Amino acid sequence: MRILILGGDGYLGWPTALRFSAAGHEVAVVDNFNRRRWHSEHGSASLTPIRPLEERIEVWHEVSGERVRFYQGGIENGDFLEEVVAETRPEAVVHYGQQASAPYSMLSRERAAETQSANIIGNLNLLFALRDHVPDAHLVKLGTMGEYGQPNIDIEEGYIEIEHKGRRDVLPYPKLPGSLYHCSKVADSTNIHFACRTWGLRATDLNQGVVYGIETEETNRDERLITRFDYDELFGTVLNRFCLQAVVGHPLTVYGAGRQTRSFLNIRDTLACVELAVANPAEAGEFRVFNQFTEQFSVLELAELVKAAAAHLGYEVTIDHVDNPRVEKEEHYYNAVNTSLLDLGLEPNYLGEELVESLLGIIERHKGNAIEGSIDPRTRWNPARSPAAQA
Amino acid sequence: MRILILGGDGYLGWPTALRFSAAGHEVAVVDNFNRRRWHSEHGSASLTPIRPLEERIEVWHEVSGERVRFYQGGIENGDFLEEVVAETRPEAVVHYGQQASAPYSMLSRERAAETQSANIIGNLNLLFALRDHVPDAHLVKLGTMGEYGQPNIDIEEGYIEIEHKGRRDVLPYPKLPGSLYHCSKVADSTNIHFACRTWGLRATDLNQGVVYGIETEETNRDERLITRFDYDELFGTVLNRFCLQAVVGHPLTVYGAGRQTRSFLNIRDTLACVELAVANPAEAGEFRVFNQFTEQFSVLELAELVKAAAAHLGYEVTIDHVDNPRVEKEEHYYNAVNTSLLDLGLEPNYLGEELVESLLGIIERHKGNAIEGSIDPRTRWNPARSPAAQA
Repeated sequence: MRILILGGDGYLGWPTALRFSAAGHEVAVVDNFNRRRWHSEHGSASLTPIRPLEERIEVWHEVSGERVRFYQGGIENGDFLEEVVAETRPEAVVHYGQQASAPYSMLSRERAAETQSANIIGNLNLLFALRDHVPDAHLVKLGTMGEYGQPNIDIEEGYIEIEHKGRRDVLPYPKLPGSLYHCSKVADSTNIHFACRTWGLRATDLNQGVVYGIETEETNRDERLITRFDYDELFGTVLNRFCLQAVVGHPLTVYGAGRQTRSFLNIRDTLACVELAVANPAEAGEFRVFNQFTEQFSVLELAELVKAAAAHLGYEVTIDHVDNPRVEKEEHYYNAVNTSLLDLGLEPNYLGEELVESLLGIIERHKGNAIEGSIDPRTRWNPARSPAAQA
Repeated sequence: MRILILGGDGYLGWPTALRFSAAGHEVAVVDNFNRRRWHSEHGSASLTPIRPLEERIEVWHEVSGERVRFYQGGIENGDFLEEVVAETRPEAVVHYGQQASAPYSMLSRERAAETQSANIIGNLNLLFALRDHVPDAHLVKLGTMGEYGQPNIDIEEGYIEIEHKGRRDVLPYPKLPGSLYHCSKVADSTNIHFACRTWGLRATDLNQGVVYGIETEETNRDERLITRFDYDELFGTVLNRFCLQAVVGHPLTVYGAGRQTRSFLNIRDTLACVELAVANPAEAGEFRVFNQFTEQFSVLELAELVKAAAAHLGYEVTIDHVDNPRVEKEEHYYNAVNTSLLDLGLEPNYLGEELVESLLGIIERHKGNAIEGSIDPRTRWNPARSPAAQA
């Protein structure tokens, strides 16, 4: 199958490209290296020593004999994207090519506008390119569980049947996004749904939980294939950050009481889910939504798990409850449905001490790269409520 | 009160500015004249001979003694908007400053991206400017009933109480926007709601129906104060277009069977609603949504009404059912709630033959300006389904 991967230099995009390439698909990737640039601008970096994309594409060829094509550019440039789609004529497009950090989107007006403009217009350009060149291609878009927020009812997969004043309809599930980044993803969902209804495109929105882990089957074939690992306040996700903190002797930074519950999955399961979605495409005109996670945890539960696993390896770990930089509910109901991908055959890699210990082991090998100053949260959702503003 | 009106050169923005100025408020308007430019680009124009904005501001001063300040620029330029907000320090901002045509947003990828970028980023810039300079100001944002689409249940005002699996919550009403323009308005609603929850801003989203009419109390004070009147396929709205067609002897162009039901209101009621919203601000942190319309009609009902009123004045009118250029349901349930503004005291000007006859009279005076070639629909929601593509 011809598969185009947008954001192919990223934490998930790169291992996804290798997975499809290893399975014999014809893979092309697009990236503009914005994530690398944003890290330079903020004095942070991947913990793992990632190679330049061209180099790791060469290594992959050495290791597997397979070729991955690379197009450098940003998808917010509609002409560029249209050319890539016209040239590669993908049967499936896996779209990770976005600014994916909530804190980054809350830094300033400029960063918020950059996030929403790049994400929403990039995705809109993609919809037009598909319509005009490969209307039968299957769009697999990475969404996020954060689009739903924390409603007081169960979170369904994209739609909900509502009975109201004696009538019924199945409608898009209401959204309460938790950052301007998350707002951009909600806008993407609205646009993709519209394109499916109006142009007959087929799309699957993978509303993903928080991903953890580093290793995948393919990146493990050569150390030069390793994917990026972010732990800084802007691009790091919570479990990865806690593991790094445990190894470098930094207290685990739990935001507030830590009773915020979120959904999580292993990076290996991300790849499995994307494979399942591609192998089982949506119907023409269908906007299908899967909730892509395997387990729910509170932030404090994760911190306790990391602390226990780290203790077994001899690390001394403390947990700090820091002033929550976000505006979010710390006590809330949370229960999300995730049966669609399980029904397609997903076999989850659940989180346990063993996984955490293996993650700690990899981090230990690379801890010399850690930039401790980039860890603590500085980006506040509401600057007027920050301790500095109140002092 | 200090009131800032974005889009102050527009069909509704200009009469709104005069209304607040006449009531003794300190009014400043912002516009970038995009609507005038888009018309030039498409060979269309306002039927009414609108004066340049600076000139009509002068006329208003002559007539009323009041001064309206004008800032020329686009709100997608965040620095410009921030300066205007910092200088005018508004207590209320009425935001009409958007690309408001559904067909325009469906013309091409470039026009779709222009629409979404200008609308979403302009509105986002406004939220930051309010947060950073006048966090207590009341944002009155013009939304549209088209955000809801045509669900099979009653349309509530912005939120709906959902009972699901034994639990309950009041959540944003699900949206099924009917064009990429409408998608941009849904994204605005998401962003404004987020800003209210996160920064404590106060906002009212006026989900407006289709507006008809030309005259308002203030614009009637001097013919040089007349507002624009669009009837072309891109910027004309349905009742205004039917009235123009009746006068120039063009068949009324009903899209498809004409059973699409929509909500409508008189331009005088738009002004009354905006006044009521400004006089009764939302609470700090509240994102309030009002459905701003007074009546529901099917498109065919409107055509019949115009035909009958025109017949009384001696026009011979025929109704043409043209191939629907839009992708929309032609048979659907439609019932929307609109009690909030009535509860605040709105006294509707209902649509009747008398109003249509008066509208026909004004159009008759200006019919020499009509550009008949701009009337018929050319912009197709799905080009692949157009008669040309199928021929």
